[in-house]
Amino acid sequence: MKEVILSQEMIDQLEKVVGQSFLFLDQATRNHYGHDETEDYVFPPSVVLKPGTPEEISEILKIANQYQIPVTPIGGRTGLSGGALSIHKGIGLSMERFNKILNIDEKNLQVVVEPAVITQVLREAVAEKGLFYPPDPSSQGSCWIGGNVAENSGGARAVKYGVTKDYVLNLEVVLPTGEIIWTGANTLKNSTGYNLTQLMVGSEGTLGVITKIVMKLLPKNSHNILMLVPFYNSGQACEAVSKIFSAGITPSALEFMERDAIDWTLRFVDGVSIAIKDEVQAHLLIEVDGNYPDVLFAEAEKITEVLEQFDIDEILFADTEDQKNALWKMRRAVGEAVKSNSIYKEEDTVVPRYELPKLLEGIKTIGDKYGFKSVCYGHAGDGNLHVNIVKGTMSDDDWKTEIPKGIREIFELTVALKGTLSGEHGIGYVQKNYMDIAFNRTQLLLMKGIKNVFDPNGILNPGKVLPDNI
Amino acid sequence: MKEVILSQEMIDQLEKVVGQSFLFLDQATRNHYGHDETEDYVFPPSVVLKPGTPEEISEILKIANQYQIPVTPIGGRTGLSGGALSIHKGIGLSMERFNKILNIDEKNLQVVVEPAVITQVLREAVAEKGLFYPPDPSSQGSCWIGGNVAENSGGARAVKYGVTKDYVLNLEVVLPTGEIIWTGANTLKNSTGYNLTQLMVGSEGTLGVITKIVMKLLPKNSHNILMLVPFYNSGQACEAVSKIFSAGITPSALEFMERDAIDWTLRFVDGVSIAIKDEVQAHLLIEVDGNYPDVLFAEAEKITEVLEQFDIDEILFADTEDQKNALWKMRRAVGEAVKSNSIYKEEDTVVPRYELPKLLEGIKTIGDKYGFKSVCYGHAGDGNLHVNIVKGTMSDDDWKTEIPKGIREIFELTVALKGTLSGEHGIGYVQKNYMDIAFNRTQLLLMKGIKNVFDPNGILNPGKVLPDNI
Repeated sequence: MKEVILSQEMIDQLEKVVGQSFLFLDQATRNHYGHDETEDYVFPPSVVLKPGTPEEISEILKIANQYQIPVTPIGGRTGLSGGALSIHKGIGLSMERFNKILNIDEKNLQVVVEPAVITQVLREAVAEKGLFYPPDPSSQGSCWIGGNVAENSGGARAVKYGVTKDYVLNLEVVLPTGEIIWTGANTLKNSTGYNLTQLMVGSEGTLGVITKIVMKLLPKNSHNILMLVPFYNSGQACEAVSKIFSAGITPSALEFMERDAIDWTLRFVDGVSIAIKDEVQAHLLIEVDGNYPDVLFAEAEKITEVLEQFDIDEILFADTEDQKNALWKMRRAVGEAVKSNSIYKEEDTVVPRYELPKLLEGIKTIGDKYGFKSVCYGHAGDGNLHVNIVKGTMSDDDWKTEIPKGIREIFELTVALKGTLSGEHGIGYVQKNYMDIAFNRTQLLLMKGIKNVFDPNGILNPGKVLPDNI
Repeated sequence: MKEVILSQEMIDQLEKVVGQSFLFLDQATRNHYGHDETEDYVFPPSVVLKPGTPEEISEILKIANQYQIPVTPIGGRTGLSGGALSIHKGIGLSMERFNKILNIDEKNLQVVVEPAVITQVLREAVAEKGLFYPPDPSSQGSCWIGGNVAENSGGARAVKYGVTKDYVLNLEVVLPTGEIIWTGANTLKNSTGYNLTQLMVGSEGTLGVITKIVMKLLPKNSHNILMLVPFYNSGQACEAVSKIFSAGITPSALEFMERDAIDWTLRFVDGVSIAIKDEVQAHLLIEVDGNYPDVLFAEAEKITEVLEQFDIDEILFADTEDQKNALWKMRRAVGEAVKSNSIYKEEDTVVPRYELPKLLEGIKTIGDKYGFKSVCYGHAGDGNLHVNIVKGTMSDDDWKTEIPKGIREIFELTVALKGTLSGEHGIGYVQKNYMDIAFNRTQLLLMKGIKNVFDPNGILNPGKVLPDNI
């Protein structure tokens, strides 16, 4: 998209919509809204707007269409694929004033929420009413529910409870052309026309600006058991994952962490200490949940029987709430801990879960070939492995030229294993030019065609998701 | 769409693709493929083709584009919204040769299946491997899995396990323009580009011809408890539905049947007899399932406690497999039984479940106003109520002029209650001109735009889903 220099007239028009106190031109504010958690990228917008109503967003988008100004919706800025970066400058549309839980409907087990509510705040608010919103991205303490919908986020509990898309019933959306629509109905079932709701979920802010979200909730579970399992062999840890499911158990979490991931995290996080033998190569963190403790004990026993077929050290059962919180704190901090050490690139590979050992082995082989170190962890129960490629002592030249080749090979392997590029982080800015690995030209042109239907002038979050050459 | 008279040249080209033995021009075959279970409609195609490979379908669609011939995909012909009717004649594309279960992947809990496999056959095949495919439309003994995907079918177990869309991971589709694509990947999580898979699910054969389906499976449950609960008041039966969920229970089925529905069914079905007191107005059929009998007994007791707050007769617990099968046989036969009595129209209303009593009451009031009788039953746990409007002794004139007004009012009520037109049957041919009640012009134009991206010449299943005036 061509860069547009904002004229005073454009600024004046935008200011008339949001008011002087919600329009920002200063460098500090623009820089603040110019980055998320994606590598070390900073792409400041030319102007930051903080609208307060869907109608104001509608007016902003109409002006943007008139002058062909790029508009980038900005959420909690915890994204890992650069979806919120204003790579073509223009308007940075911060959604932060849409921060209310509008209605917790206990009769229908639903919640209506605005996009800037922090995911954990939402989870705790519904829990107070005895209800359960399962998706729990590791960044749940800071990410926003709107961003979760835009990226179709997952988290540790996805393995049993599904991802964000499985909870979205209906969305209020401002279309790029300015119309305000609802995508569906507030019902559990819906066979009425094309599924605009699911098309919007995971579209990474390129098809519309989400202003209200209707989600289904579950009754809250009362009990869980959490165990940390040390493996002497990483491949075996991956193999154990499928075996647990084959035994008829669906854990509520099944997380994989390489040795490095845990070591780095234990150094990074305060107040968590675990003694780990030198020979241990990887851990599984396994949770079962439900309402009946006896059932959970029986399931934990079944899981233990499966695990004993492998070469493992002693299983650590978290006995108290404090121990459970400490283990989850550690798991959630892995991403930050690994990244605190070095410049990094994070890939969000996903395969059918049985293929996980092959994926892990392949990644290490590719790393050897291109000379990079990777630290892997993630939601093994879903086959979703986060691959952190750390720069460490690699030269800037190699980082620029060799790493993209290595990433391309990792994605080729992923797709060959019937998997795909991203399980829960989205494609955004940093993965878009690998999309040709997962999709051919026909598929990409369909996506491009859909984008054009929603956004004929291409003003909303340009340069994201679709590759540059399509 | 304009009617096209098939020339000998077109027929010759089509025959070259499928072979002489899979092209049918005789009236009997065309009539056979000209109807499904939608009212008494018969719309024979001009020619019936039975292709054997995606490549043949691709060739057929290319010829159809060349001559602007309408193509209507035809599945098990059990549909209730007329999606398989060749209303513009042209090619009736029977999918019956795509009838294989290609792979039951026990390691990844997935199945790859062709569209013409009967849903019950699929469910039984995976059950033999200890796996569970939950969606169970009442027509499961004759409907096809491809039609289930096209209509996003539900069934009794949707209340706990979700609908067809929740099990579809990936689809092989022949696009209307002839390209063969996969819509996604074989993974449980996917944040890679727009969700073409979920766009295809429920698109009723208007965006592509489904040729392979990858679905996720669950481990099979070993136990269940089934109970039939007679209510002296229909409204109270509806109210009880929400109360059960509020007590923290998620039943695996929660079905509602008006008195007439059961009475008509008991006369229609052999081998099932239940003594029902004259004062009973409605029944709930409630199932809980799981692996631990003790837990199920505890849940059944909790449900009983909730039910005792209402004015109910004695609960019938199905003690044996035979009794369970008899009750399910009865429930599944309701639709057919009600329809065997008279010409009918069936609506597939869905609302948030707490609104069910209001919906039922409103339907009866609207019936009184327009002079029609309705028999209601359905998946109350999902808020999905099937409304069978029976012609009975109504004059043909009133049936033609008054009933559409009544249906419009029913849908307006449904939408006012935050519900929508169809929960699981689709819009197809018979509901399309009510779509303006659920969607405004902006929303419908988005859908039309998507249709144009996939099918620029509008040859695939024309005259379905979208209203005539859009």
